[in-house]
Amino acid sequence: MEDGVIKQIGDNLIVPGGIKTVEANGKMVIPGGIDNHTHFQMPYRGTTTVDDFSQGSKAALAGGTTMIVDHVIPEPGSSLIEAFEQWRSWADEKTCCDYSLHVDITHWNDSVKQEVDTLLKEKGVNSFQVYMAYKDFYQMSNSELYEIFTFLGEMGGIVQVHAENGEIIAEQARMLEMGITGPEGHVLSRPEELEAEAVFRAITIASQTNCPLYVTRVMSKSAADIISQARKKGNVVFGEPIAASLGTDGTHYWSKNWAKAASFVTSPPLSPDPTTPDYLNTLLASGDLNVTGSAHCTFSVAQKAIGKDDFTQIPEGVNGVEERMSLIWDKAVTTGKMDENMFVAVTSTNAAKILNLYPRKGRVAVGSDADLVIWDSDAVRTITAKTHNSAAEFNVFEGMELRGAPSVVICQGKLVLEDGNLHAISGVGRFIPCTPFPDFAYKRVKARKQVKDAMKGTVSTHEKKIDTCP
Amino acid sequence: MEDGVIKQIGDNLIVPGGIKTVEANGKMVIPGGIDNHTHFQMPYRGTTTVDDFSQGSKAALAGGTTMIVDHVIPEPGSSLIEAFEQWRSWADEKTCCDYSLHVDITHWNDSVKQEVDTLLKEKGVNSFQVYMAYKDFYQMSNSELYEIFTFLGEMGGIVQVHAENGEIIAEQARMLEMGITGPEGHVLSRPEELEAEAVFRAITIASQTNCPLYVTRVMSKSAADIISQARKKGNVVFGEPIAASLGTDGTHYWSKNWAKAASFVTSPPLSPDPTTPDYLNTLLASGDLNVTGSAHCTFSVAQKAIGKDDFTQIPEGVNGVEERMSLIWDKAVTTGKMDENMFVAVTSTNAAKILNLYPRKGRVAVGSDADLVIWDSDAVRTITAKTHNSAAEFNVFEGMELRGAPSVVICQGKLVLEDGNLHAISGVGRFIPCTPFPDFAYKRVKARKQVKDAMKGTVSTHEKKIDTCP
Amino acid sequence: MEDGVIKQIGDNLIVPGGIKTVEANGKMVIPGGIDNHTHFQMPYRGTTTVDDFSQGSKAALAGGTTMIVDHVIPEPGSSLIEAFEQWRSWADEKTCCDYSLHVDITHWNDSVKQEVDTLLKEKGVNSFQVYMAYKDFYQMSNSELYEIFTFLGEMGGIVQVHAENGEIIAEQARMLEMGITGPEGHVLSRPEELEAEAVFRAITIASQTNCPLYVTRVMSKSAADIISQARKKGNVVFGEPIAASLGTDGTHYWSKNWAKAASFVTSPPLSPDPTTPDYLNTLLASGDLNVTGSAHCTFSVAQKAIGKDDFTQIPEGVNGVEERMSLIWDKAVTTGKMDENMFVAVTSTNAAKILNLYPRKGRVAVGSDADLVIWDSDAVRTITAKTHNSAAEFNVFEGMELRGAPSVVICQGKLVLEDGNLHAISGVGRFIPCTPFPDFAYKRVKARKQVKDAMKGTVSTHEKKIDTCP
Amino acid sequence: MEDGVIKQIGDNLIVPGGIKTVEANGKMVIPGGIDNHTHFQMPYRGTTTVDDFSQGSKAALAGGTTMIVDHVIPEPGSSLIEAFEQWRSWADEKTCCDYSLHVDITHWNDSVKQEVDTLLKEKGVNSFQVYMAYKDFYQMSNSELYEIFTFLGEMGGIVQVHAENGEIIAEQARMLEMGITGPEGHVLSRPEELEAEAVFRAITIASQTNCPLYVTRVMSKSAADIISQARKKGNVVFGEPIAASLGTDGTHYWSKNWAKAASFVTSPPLSPDPTTPDYLNTLLASGDLNVTGSAHCTFSVAQKAIGKDDFTQIPEGVNGVEERMSLIWDKAVTTGKMDENMFVAVTSTNAAKILNLYPRKGRVAVGSDADLVIWDSDAVRTITAKTHNSAAEFNVFEGMELRGAPSVVICQGKLVLEDGNLHAISGVGRFIPCTPFPDFAYKRVKARKQVKDAMKGTVSTHEKKIDTCP
Repeated sequence: MEDGVIKQIGDNLIVPGGIKTVEANGKMVIPGGIDNHTHFQMPYRGTTTVDDFSQGSKAALAGGTTMIVDHVIPEPGSSLIEAFEQWRSWADEKTCCDYSLHVDITHWNDSVKQEVDTLLKEKGVNSFQVYMAYKDFYQMSNSELYEIFTFLGEMGGIVQVHAENGEIIAEQARMLEMGITGPEGHVLSRPEELEAEAVFRAITIASQTNCPLYVTRVMSKSAADIISQARKKGNVVFGEPIAASLGTDGTHYWSKNWAKAASFVTSPPLSPDPTTPDYLNTLLASGDLNVTGSAHCTFSVAQKAIGKDDFTQIPEGVNGVEERMSLIWDKAVTTGKMDENMFVAVTSTNAAKILNLYPRKGRVAVGSDADLVIWDSDAVRTITAKTHNSAAEFNVFEGMELRGAPSVVICQGKLVLEDGNLHAISGVGRFIPCTPFPDFAYKRVKARKQVKDAMKGTVSTHEKKIDTCP
Repeated sequence: MEDGVIKQIGDNLIVPGGIKTVEANGKMVIPGGIDNHTHFQMPYRGTTTVDDFSQGSKAALAGGTTMIVDHVIPEPGSSLIEAFEQWRSWADEKTCCDYSLHVDITHWNDSVKQEVDTLLKEKGVNSFQVYMAYKDFYQMSNSELYEIFTFLGEMGGIVQVHAENGEIIAEQARMLEMGITGPEGHVLSRPEELEAEAVFRAITIASQTNCPLYVTRVMSKSAADIISQARKKGNVVFGEPIAASLGTDGTHYWSKNWAKAASFVTSPPLSPDPTTPDYLNTLLASGDLNVTGSAHCTFSVAQKAIGKDDFTQIPEGVNGVEERMSLIWDKAVTTGKMDENMFVAVTSTNAAKILNLYPRKGRVAVGSDADLVIWDSDAVRTITAKTHNSAAEFNVFEGMELRGAPSVVICQGKLVLEDGNLHAISGVGRFIPCTPFPDFAYKRVKARKQVKDAMKGTVSTHEKKIDTCP
Repeated sequence: MEDGVIKQIGDNLIVPGGIKTVEANGKMVIPGGIDNHTHFQMPYRGTTTVDDFSQGSKAALAGGTTMIVDHVIPEPGSSLIEAFEQWRSWADEKTCCDYSLHVDITHWNDSVKQEVDTLLKEKGVNSFQVYMAYKDFYQMSNSELYEIFTFLGEMGGIVQVHAENGEIIAEQARMLEMGITGPEGHVLSRPEELEAEAVFRAITIASQTNCPLYVTRVMSKSAADIISQARKKGNVVFGEPIAASLGTDGTHYWSKNWAKAASFVTSPPLSPDPTTPDYLNTLLASGDLNVTGSAHCTFSVAQKAIGKDDFTQIPEGVNGVEERMSLIWDKAVTTGKMDENMFVAVTSTNAAKILNLYPRKGRVAVGSDADLVIWDSDAVRTITAKTHNSAAEFNVFEGMELRGAPSVVICQGKLVLEDGNLHAISGVGRFIPCTPFPDFAYKRVKARKQVKDAMKGTVSTHEKKIDTCP
Repeated sequence: MEDGVIKQIGDNLIVPGGIKTVEANGKMVIPGGIDNHTHFQMPYRGTTTVDDFSQGSKAALAGGTTMIVDHVIPEPGSSLIEAFEQWRSWADEKTCCDYSLHVDITHWNDSVKQEVDTLLKEKGVNSFQVYMAYKDFYQMSNSELYEIFTFLGEMGGIVQVHAENGEIIAEQARMLEMGITGPEGHVLSRPEELEAEAVFRAITIASQTNCPLYVTRVMSKSAADIISQARKKGNVVFGEPIAASLGTDGTHYWSKNWAKAASFVTSPPLSPDPTTPDYLNTLLASGDLNVTGSAHCTFSVAQKAIGKDDFTQIPEGVNGVEERMSLIWDKAVTTGKMDENMFVAVTSTNAAKILNLYPRKGRVAVGSDADLVIWDSDAVRTITAKTHNSAAEFNVFEGMELRGAPSVVICQGKLVLEDGNLHAISGVGRFIPCTPFPDFAYKRVKARKQVKDAMKGTVSTHEKKIDTCP
């Protein structure tokens, strides 16, 4: 490795003097993880999530993740580009590893469309999230979704979707609020059917507009099944389960400890069906789900307590950026669901491909960035908020004993984790621009477009004169 | 039979003098068919469909159907009750057989809600159709659907739904209109995914609100599959394929004869996949779909020609009230998919149960109405517009040779079809009021409500004090 | 009711003097249950199950079941008719309610075929069970199954199948015996995949031979799914979950109390997946499964103890004849899965139809047998071996609190249960002969046969001369 | 490239003098195809298939395939190793490209087991095919399959399975022979249910024995669905559709031209459902099916004519080694079902991984074998027996116009196809030994074994004393 890039791979390399050698004997060298979904330093009602880009990216590195992709969330009505620049400045200042950005489309009109165009062509953003929930706030109508999908499908973008039916949630939350105030109201008002419904609808719109779709936060069996069925029919859709949905469940919403219950509040909610994580890991292994993130978004107990008397006011978000890779190793690899290659694909490579950053990221090859992990499949550690690198007081994986952990992490060619010591440096992380039309999604989309266009020419013409004989 | 009611059933009945006896030797005596979906004498843009209640009900009787259920379609914004009374007067004047009415909810507010309440409690209407298509016209938002479903679920009504995603249709029709003007544009703008999407959404809302759902016009495999999957999960949902979707397909939209192509225009459209009818008949036989209608709604070629240069303007509707029973016999019974009992269930009994008219209708029993059919399973006839009883110039089943036909039809205890002669009398048909809470749907709904209510009491209470320790 | 038959049904019946009247105010009058699967007084290795036809049928009546259908199990190699006569004599002597018999085909050759023919045509048996398990004992090869299915399909019989892959079980039991001796070895050697495999195979053979199939003892989700999928494709197949699979699960095989664990040993085994009963009840409610029995076959602890040191030697069988109806009411009706009509169908009517005894049995109608139950849906009782009517020391439903119970049972027109008192009389039960070609299965089978035969005529003929040009 | 190995990959390579440069401007460089299933020079009743290793491998190279894997088929009862050596000598003498060998296990006993052991450990064979069809000839019993799967699962082999239920085929063929003699009898006696049944059974046995399974010749939707469902449950199973099932269908069995109809005779048969190829291509694209071969096995019309009067005597086999890659490109890539990466995976890389030859084969990388193809996605050619490189008179893809073809083929570092000219040299092909325990299958298998072994320790121990209290 030299200058943050892999220079040579081989058996008998000639190593110049002064070069450090790291022993990986008996361990696996894999590309550093890419967490394709974080919310570091996220503004929320005049305050900010407790893990900023520095703290958050340190936690990432501690878990073997060497690149994160954060979501820019513009206030509805405000400029997307300004929000993007704001996020850039926050991240550039503090991030310890390379990063990219998704931009969320929180309102839609011609000027937003123009901004999306600019972000795609000039600013290095190729993926944009829309919301089917948060009625009267972020939520888009079906017509708006159709327009956005059509536009991004033509421009080579990836549509990311937060899939829940916001209108039904609004109705149900209103009814529940009368009787229920605790965190369990969150999941009672948002049963998994509402997630599945929105996923089904999003896939339908994506199919009609020939636009690749990326479903963020796959939280339930029902939603995953819809994605799986669509993929088998040939739809270009990627599902992103998150660390929390792969590792824990929604039974905790009924915990007597309010703060603990509140720490699990995220949307779509974790499923109260405890067989969900195993199911999602199986589909991740079979290739029905493809990418993983953490949706890491941590609030302090004091911040969560805004919703003490009203579950609809609890700030939403769970941790996971540090635990993601170990969780998947433990739940999917050691159980024989997936092999090591698939592990690398779902924790790193597939994300790089969707971001159009492959093979620079997500691969161990000459010329690729020197983001590497030496993975120790025998390591066992117990997750606890006492020792995690996040600033949050709770950890949704508290007490879990996980097999598999990074023993060495190399980021930008530098050793950042060794012998259990983390040497992360704030501000060294670079923004990695993503370009449109990633092959991983668009090769198929383009071929379909050609087929569709060719078909249009074959539409039969009816006789001009109307013939009333059958 | 006496006074229109079955008086005795048995082997050695004592028949008073002067009573006519009908020979049914070797044939099957079944309850008269109930067509749960017609549009007779339907107003449309200042004109009216060509089959009025007289002509339409004659066609019904000719095919073995002794009761029809028509849809009242109020102009959006106008009174539901006034529309209902209008339809009553039209039907009372002309119908040759008993009838009931569904009322379509074409707009929603508190005053409409009050009218629905009156219709349910005082007017003999227990089923109401809502539209998920026809944007900016009949279409309801998800929130409105949620409210209507909740209300009807509490009041014992049946929600009927026209399931298509109206917003996506609007977008696609707009795009297509630029290049395509013919009837094939109708199906190209409304691919079956849009039907399936709406069915999925309607089932989700019905499940959340614990309201029984009836999907009118199941036209595609995808939509039927969604219904079937939901039923297997325990949802209370009934699917209504229509004569046209059970008997023909959407390849005809590309017919060079414009008038013929236009005669197939209905919504959701017939599927261009020619394996669809066989599939729907199989699911009807297996009990995954339950009820049938014809959605009989016939326009003349001249009326259809309004849309000559713009497929979106073609009046929608197909024939089928006369052919429905023979079609199902031919496609499902003679093929070994269903037995005679199931045939009676899907052509008559299940509809009677949903309308809460069973066992008065839909059954051959002492005390039931004397609406009977002697069915000749060996009869074969060829369908053609030349001989059908509808006033329409086209028949979507033109040329089909169908096995199975009524040899005798008795309606209200009177012989109306015998030896091929139809003796129907306009105006003898009675309005049969339907009452709320039909057991067929509500037994399960009530039990679920009890379970849900019982569960609410078990919701755990969180500690008042927030404990920051995990 | 008179002479054991229902004479009149109505509102203002004229009741002759001296006739007892039973109050059913606010309760439901339903046809007595039919338990389509019992093993009373079953010989086993020189001993006999603890519930003889008297004890067993008393337990049946106590639970609302007024007819049982027992399995005749001839020793392989011995005469089927002699075994049948033996069972007849045992049952005639002691049974307290009407009964029919299934005969199991435990070996196959031309003489057996001749006996089956006689049983079908002259002895009143229309259903015959074959075994896909018990290698080198009862198990049939695929070729034998094909021949039996073909023969019974032509003669109008119903093939019942015990579906498990006996060869794989034999292999696995052999391996397990080395390390495991307890009852958990039973289920470890017979995972549900082996049940599903055999069900799939049986359905394939039934489909090829156009023979109606009845799968006894549906114990697992996998097996039920296979049946459900086949029915949706149009196969004529009926699935029989039993009281035990609908009410409990296989986690008890690991009970530290050996005798308790052993009391659950039956084949196919109860599934260790505790979500199984709920799933099977849902499919029973949706019509994917159709009939229920108990497979009641009770051994004492002393008898079970033969297998104390080797699970393969534990006599197989569970109780359930008394609990079946309450279980289904509790698990499926009170939960809103099924309504009362479906309850009657799956506990009584469908069995009567398959046995070709409908409407004599399985229906409340004039002319039907006076086997009636007044069902109290509010009754709650706790199941325990201390009070059950079986002679077995254990009850697999021990401790369950079930809602729904018979308050009055009338059998052959006589009150046998009233005010909690059972007045059953041994030996009054009559053998009810079953005839071939029950419409419930054969209407469809015959139609298919006609279609197939018609198709054979259309097979194209190839040119006689071989033409080598493509 | 040097010495048949890729030496350098890069932008500005220093090319020594005398080195030929090939222009690939605008075209795609991909690893040469691996046809994982051929039958060249196959002995059959004293004669031999018309394409020997020379002719067959030339056809392969012409289509872009640079490695073939042939099946050794020992006569039942004879030595596997002797058969293997025989095939080696035939192939070494004539093959124009590298090859490996599968060995079919056509009978089973301890001595065969010993031979399999030797082949695995010393002879370079890692995959062995077993037959579930060909009763009384190649067919294995379930017990034998269980033993073979167990053995190969422990030794690191891959079980390949020819999946059809041979017993049912035998029964049905016997019945059909009375009335039908033509090639359509072949498919009528082997409906796709029999393929699906065997696939289900094989997967069950593989799951029980924890052995990776490879299903050769996936010919039908039903069979593919079974594989797909099993993969989603986590089973380690690979499905191999062949060129013929991906490109054509079984309607041709009814061709009036006997010789043409006979040219399609192969087992399992091509499905008469014409929507099958599209379906299989979709599942190949979604990763539910993984590998492709041709099962190329060509007989002359004269050879096929043995079965002129009896379809059961027609020698089985179709062509496809030359057309396979173009077919998949045309049906799956140009239609937008799969992208180029997936194309390489299913035509080459996945086979290499299963054979444990990756990255030597199936990859373009430094150190890999110089088997390369320059693929021209714009090329269009029409398939016809007149110009194909096989010696067969018929081509099952006759008349198809396929997009996508190799413009240059490099095999062992030598140009063998350029400017439409084929320069293949017989006998240069090397046998490439395959080793056991390919990671692609065994990483997961090993992890599962560990999980299973760990679980065994947790089996609860029952109390020694039998306690008769519930």
